[in-house]
Amino acid sequence: MSLIVQKFGGTSVANADRLRNVAQIITEKYKQGNDMVVVVSAQGDTTDDLIAKAAEVNDHPSKREMDMLLTAGEQMSASLLAMTIEKMGYPVVSLLGWQAGFITTTDYGNARIKTVDPQRIRKELDKRNIVIVTGFQGINRYDDMTTLGRGGSDTSAVAIACVMKADLCQIYTDVDGVYTADPRKVENAIKLPMISYDEMLELATLGAQVLHNRSVEMAKKYGLELEVLSSITKQPGTIVKEITKMEKMLISGVAKDTNIARISIIGVPDKPGLAFRVFSKLSAKNINVDIILQSVGRNGTKDISFTIAQDNLKLALDLLEPYAEALGATSVVYNEHVAKVSIVGAGMESHPGVAADMFEALYGANINIHMISTSEIKISVLIDESEADAAVQAVHNKFFR
Amino acid sequence: MSLIVQKFGGTSVANADRLRNVAQIITEKYKQGNDMVVVVSAQGDTTDDLIAKAAEVNDHPSKREMDMLLTAGEQMSASLLAMTIEKMGYPVVSLLGWQAGFITTTDYGNARIKTVDPQRIRKELDKRNIVIVTGFQGINRYDDMTTLGRGGSDTSAVAIACVMKADLCQIYTDVDGVYTADPRKVENAIKLPMISYDEMLELATLGAQVLHNRSVEMAKKYGLELEVLSSITKQPGTIVKEITKMEKMLISGVAKDTNIARISIIGVPDKPGLAFRVFSKLSAKNINVDIILQSVGRNGTKDISFTIAQDNLKLALDLLEPYAEALGATSVVYNEHVAKVSIVGAGMESHPGVAADMFEALYGANINIHMISTSEIKISVLIDESEADAAVQAVHNKFFR
Repeated sequence: MSLIVQKFGGTSVANADRLRNVAQIITEKYKQGNDMVVVVSAQGDTTDDLIAKAAEVNDHPSKREMDMLLTAGEQMSASLLAMTIEKMGYPVVSLLGWQAGFITTTDYGNARIKTVDPQRIRKELDKRNIVIVTGFQGINRYDDMTTLGRGGSDTSAVAIACVMKADLCQIYTDVDGVYTADPRKVENAIKLPMISYDEMLELATLGAQVLHNRSVEMAKKYGLELEVLSSITKQPGTIVKEITKMEKMLISGVAKDTNIARISIIGVPDKPGLAFRVFSKLSAKNINVDIILQSVGRNGTKDISFTIAQDNLKLALDLLEPYAEALGATSVVYNEHVAKVSIVGAGMESHPGVAADMFEALYGANINIHMISTSEIKISVLIDESEADAAVQAVHNKFFR
Repeated sequence: MSLIVQKFGGTSVANADRLRNVAQIITEKYKQGNDMVVVVSAQGDTTDDLIAKAAEVNDHPSKREMDMLLTAGEQMSASLLAMTIEKMGYPVVSLLGWQAGFITTTDYGNARIKTVDPQRIRKELDKRNIVIVTGFQGINRYDDMTTLGRGGSDTSAVAIACVMKADLCQIYTDVDGVYTADPRKVENAIKLPMISYDEMLELATLGAQVLHNRSVEMAKKYGLELEVLSSITKQPGTIVKEITKMEKMLISGVAKDTNIARISIIGVPDKPGLAFRVFSKLSAKNINVDIILQSVGRNGTKDISFTIAQDNLKLALDLLEPYAEALGATSVVYNEHVAKVSIVGAGMESHPGVAADMFEALYGANINIHMISTSEIKISVLIDESEADAAVQAVHNKFFR
C-alpha cells in the first residue's frame, strides 16, 4: 500500500463532467489499495471571477481581505469533488488548508508554508477516507486565512507529499507533460520523459508555466519525485527528479518570456558604486533584476541596461527617473517590446559548444541579439518581442532535429 | 460608546450597490463612536446556486460536505463587505464563524450554537476595527464546518449580541418590520412598533418568515431587545422585546401557512394507545405533528387526523400506510390542499371573545373550518388552501378595521 498525493488544477475540476473524470482517476488508485491525498485548485475561472467581484467594490482591497475572499474558491471545489466521489460510493472527506495543518507566514497574497502538521490527514487516512485538501491556502499565526500566490496549489501538494513521505506525487494540469518547447507554437516539440529539478526551475522561471517554482524547489530539497501529467489524456507525463549524468540531455527545452522590459540608464559617470546604488533601490521595492549589461560609453561615461518583469516597469521608472540626476545620468530609457528566449539543459555544463550553436541558429534566422545571459545550465538572449516565436522555432530546430 | 450588533440578510448584500448601502449604514453608526459587530448572510442567490452545483454531481451529498460548500457563501460576502468598508476609509476586518469563536453541535446542516467565545472579536474591537462576521456557520468539536440551517444568520447575530451584552441588536432584512399580516397580500396591514418574544415566536412558526425562531428564543432567554428593519427604507422597524401588560395588543398579527398537509387514519378500533403508537412512530423520524383531531366514528371505531409540514408528507405516508393494518385502520387518507390561518396576540389571554370573533369573520366570508387549535396567545384554523388569502383578509378586517 502506497501513499499517493495528487494535485488537480482549475481546468481539471472546472465543471461536473471534469469533476467526475478526476474522481475516476482518484478512485482508480484508491481501489488498488493506496492511501489518497488530493489537493485541488479553485474551479476554472472562479478565482478571476472573485477578483472581478472585489474590483467592483474596491480597486485596492487589502490583501488580507482578498485572501479571505479567494480561499472560498478552493473550499467550493474541494467539497464538490468530495461529493462527486461520495456519489461513486467511496469514503471521502474534504479539508480546508487550516484543517489539513497548513501554517504559513503572514504575507497575505503570497504567503510561504512554514509547517504542515498532517495529523488530521493521517487520522482520515486511517479511517480509509480519500482526503481532499484545498490547495493554495493556509492560516498564519493570527489564525487568518492566507494564500500562497498564483499556482500555489502545486506547492501545497508537494508540501504534503514531502512531510508525509509520499511514494508518488502527481501534478495533474492542463498540459500532459514538460515539452522541449511550447507544443502549441513550435513544431516538433517533444514531450520529455524526465527532467531534473534544476532544469525545471529554469524553465519555470523562463515562462514555461507548468509547475510553480516553489514546489520544484521544495521537491528538490526533499528529493521528492514529481510527475506532471494531464487529467484529460491520462498518458504518462514527465517525471521531475534528480537526474544522473548518464541520463542528462544536452538541451531539455527552449522557452520564451515576453513579460520583460529593458531599462537603460544612459551616460553615467564611470565611477564605482553605480550598480549598487541602482539595484539596491530596486530591490528595496522587491523588483527583481534579471539580465544586466554594463557598457563603457564615450567621454568616461557608461551605460547600464537591465531587464525586469514588465509588471514592474512603471514602478521602476517612477523610482529611477527622479533619481537620474543624482546618478549623473543623461537619461533613462526603456523598451517594453523585448522578449527573452532561453535554452535549458543540464548537459550543457560539459558541452561548451551549445552557446555557439544557439547564436548560429538565431543568426541563421536573421535575429538580432540585444543582451546575453548565461548560467551553468541555461543560456538566455534578449531579442525583439516580434521575433520571439521565430527565435524559439529556429533554436528548437537546431537542437531537436 | 455602545456595542451594536447588526445583521444583514442576503438581499441586503446582494451586489456591489447593496454592499455600499450597507457599508453606509454600518459606518454611520461607527462614526458616532460605537463598537460595531456585523453579521452577514451569503449574497442573494449564492446559497441556492451552490446547492444547484452540488446537485449536478450528487443528488444526495453528505451534510458534512454540503456545509463545507455552503459556508463559502458567507465567506465571500463577509470579505466583500469588508473591502467595501475599506474603500470608504474605515478600519475593518472580516472573521469566519470559527475565527469569531462559534462552536456548534455536530448536526451538519442544522447545528446549534454551543458556545461563542468572543475573544477575537473583542481584540479587533479594541483596535477600533469594524468586525464583519460570517453568519450561519461555526465549527464542531471535530474542527469541521457546520451550518445553523436556513435563516441561521439571525441566530449568529443574536448569539454574539447576547454573549457580548450588546446595547442594540438590529436585524436588517428585506421587510421593514413585523406587520399584522403580509403587507403584499392584505390591505390595511399595519407595521407593529413592537411585539413580544412569544408573539414573534408564534408568528415565525406560523410562516411569517421575518426572524429565525431560534434567534427569538435566544433573545427572549437573555432579555435582548431586537430591532427588525429594512436596509433599503432605513425607517424605524419593529422592536421585539418583553412587553408589559399595558402595552399588549389584543391581536398582533394574522398569519397563514400553506406548507401544511393533513393525514387522516380512518376507522381505527376505539382502544387506548392509538395516538401514542402513531405519534411515536412519526417523532422517531423527526416529523413534527401540529393540529390533532380525534373523532369517534361509527361502530366503536374512531378517526384520527393531524397536520404536518408538507415536506414531510411522503415520509409520513411511507411510514403509516404499511402500518395501517397493524393499527386495525380501514384506510389512511391525506389532503395537501389545506392551509393554516392563525391569529396571534399576547392580549387574548384575558379576552375570551377573540375566538368567536375570528370564527365569525370566517363564517362571514363563507369559509369552512376543518380543524381548530388554540394556545394562550394563538388561535389557528385549518381551511382549504384556495381560501387562505380570503381568510387572512377577512380575519384581518375583523381585528384591524
